[in-house]
Amino acid sequence: MKESRTPRAAKSLFPRLGMIAGTSLMALVLPATALAQAEEKPDANPVQIDADGTVHVPAMSVPVSSFLTDEAKKYLTQHLHNMQDRESGTLPENGVPFVMKPYMVSAKAMFPLVREEVTIAGVAGISYTPTQGIKPENRNRILLNLHGGGFGGCYPGCAELESMPIASLGGYKVITIDYRQAPEHRFPAASEDVASVYRELLKTYKPADIGIYGCSAGGMLVGMAMAWFDKEGLPMPGAAGIFCAGMTLEKKFPGFGGDAHYMTAAVGEANPPVEPPPPLGKGPPPLQYLENVDVKDPLAAPANSPELLAKFPPTLFITGTRAFELSSAVYSHGQMVKAGAEADLHVWDGLFHGFLNNPAVPESQDAYKVIVDFFDKKLGK
Amino acid sequence: MKESRTPRAAKSLFPRLGMIAGTSLMALVLPATALAQAEEKPDANPVQIDADGTVHVPAMSVPVSSFLTDEAKKYLTQHLHNMQDRESGTLPENGVPFVMKPYMVSAKAMFPLVREEVTIAGVAGISYTPTQGIKPENRNRILLNLHGGGFGGCYPGCAELESMPIASLGGYKVITIDYRQAPEHRFPAASEDVASVYRELLKTYKPADIGIYGCSAGGMLVGMAMAWFDKEGLPMPGAAGIFCAGMTLEKKFPGFGGDAHYMTAAVGEANPPVEPPPPLGKGPPPLQYLENVDVKDPLAAPANSPELLAKFPPTLFITGTRAFELSSAVYSHGQMVKAGAEADLHVWDGLFHGFLNNPAVPESQDAYKVIVDFFDKKLGK
Repeated sequence: MKESRTPRAAKSLFPRLGMIAGTSLMALVLPATALAQAEEKPDANPVQIDADGTVHVPAMSVPVSSFLTDEAKKYLTQHLHNMQDRESGTLPENGVPFVMKPYMVSAKAMFPLVREEVTIAGVAGISYTPTQGIKPENRNRILLNLHGGGFGGCYPGCAELESMPIASLGGYKVITIDYRQAPEHRFPAASEDVASVYRELLKTYKPADIGIYGCSAGGMLVGMAMAWFDKEGLPMPGAAGIFCAGMTLEKKFPGFGGDAHYMTAAVGEANPPVEPPPPLGKGPPPLQYLENVDVKDPLAAPANSPELLAKFPPTLFITGTRAFELSSAVYSHGQMVKAGAEADLHVWDGLFHGFLNNPAVPESQDAYKVIVDFFDKKLGK
Repeated sequence: MKESRTPRAAKSLFPRLGMIAGTSLMALVLPATALAQAEEKPDANPVQIDADGTVHVPAMSVPVSSFLTDEAKKYLTQHLHNMQDRESGTLPENGVPFVMKPYMVSAKAMFPLVREEVTIAGVAGISYTPTQGIKPENRNRILLNLHGGGFGGCYPGCAELESMPIASLGGYKVITIDYRQAPEHRFPAASEDVASVYRELLKTYKPADIGIYGCSAGGMLVGMAMAWFDKEGLPMPGAAGIFCAGMTLEKKFPGFGGDAHYMTAAVGEANPPVEPPPPLGKGPPPLQYLENVDVKDPLAAPANSPELLAKFPPTLFITGTRAFELSSAVYSHGQMVKAGAEADLHVWDGLFHGFLNNPAVPESQDAYKVIVDFFDKKLGK
């Protein structure tokens, strides 16, 4: 491409963008040091672009999204405060992190369910069925939930919060399982456990009638498990849901890759942005469960294999613009589409990683409806 | 929700997020002043959260997305430099902004087409048909493109760049029109022009066989025009594409609302982030074409009316994580889904407003395929 520079042309395309950058506004937007620099050289832009495209972004203040409901604005604010207070931590109690206890109270009040402890193929789990009964059209169907928790905890907390709304609102039987995690276990122990449970479910259910979904590590594990099914010669399930996650891994530093690793740290989790990226081996360690994994291995990061993605069933992605998996989710969705698979992406503006764990928020309820409608439509009739 | 604070629990959910915020990394990530503050008070987080949820984000450096192709990395870098140089502007030449000239060269080389000047219902336009002929299955179909340019220019530049790839790769006849814009005209002049042309097309084509799409202002105009069709009692077209845009407007300051207004300014357009938002009336003016519009009027911002959205045909949204319309696009998509309409969202990580104007980039080509496949599938058979 030619080195063509054309500010006025650029302004004419979207006039106000040019104006936002105008000096009249600079006094409002810049920290004192950047402003001093800008004043020395009137045309200096406090945003600097390196030759390799790296953008140096000045400090900024970002309000809650104008698109959020009042409940979600409060929820986001509380979440950011929760993530920032590192002084008086409380360990999870009975597998339910303290921060999630109010969500659990809401879930138990909102979703009347019959809860049963189960063991399938030697793997412990919980079965949820609606108190009013499984919907007639779902009698031959089942959903398998793979819970979040960074492959190192949050059972049964996350497992219950992810299963209850879908079982209740969808009229489904949902099974959630306590797959093996770190610190005791490593990849691919969880994939093996999911495959064992799935193999057992296939004795009762047609593959097209089985849906599989999860959030966060559980969302990643959905992709990993389907890659494992393929390797084992098992048929694909009828539909899949990858929530709060994607199907990529990054080696250089922890994260799923892409823009979101930088852009959502502060606004999604109240963490300082990581910049510049730490050199290899100097950053924080990756997830313990994945510590020896080749990040390009399709069994761990299926987005690396178009051939594999082409075999995946219709897959629903749910993420948010403040979620650190945003880039991985939208990229994985795009790679599935490019590979010829069916994939459906839904992004909530202003919300963060795992937002849908709190059922008291309208945006979470909207997400549950998207999930239920998806499985209703895509699973076998 | 309870005021519950639980750092350790939060860490256990996704251990590395806690570690990213750890002090060992702070020396790498913080500007000197923030670091000094952090050292004074060892636990101080340079990210500050206000009581209303506003996040104060320290300066950061964001590299190009790891998910981009090499071509797109170069494209983004060049785009950021183009947007930043405000000294030696060049006005559009014959309606083609200087920055887009290389894209036009690529488009003319890549897409063999028959180009004809047309006038439909008194509105000037250009018709494109593939040199090798319209695909047999598209003989009874037509696509209407509404070009970008901030409702104030970029005809025929944007019009041609948006029409050529779809006509050529899809085997479609594409008409693009020179609808009325600012500075001479105001809302709803463009909607009226689109309706006049559409009414004329309906004499030859069934509504289900007509697709309508656009990028940037043209994407906004797709929503506005369909709202206008509804008001006029015209049938909906078979399918719609809202690219580089959404269906919302914001009053407080220019923009489409949501997170993207803040988060993408620097990394998408090399503009300083707008913060704090200017008080009412003190920010830069809104788009001239829309200056007297009620931002909640569904004829201008259809996302405000679920009843209207429910009548819309299947609609494709295309955006990027560095695009200032990101929030508006994902929110509008979500509102359509919530209203019971059919909508399909595709987001390119690391790319900016209107990225698909450059046909030489693989990501643009992937987007064209998504567009063509969508119209192939959704238009009448």
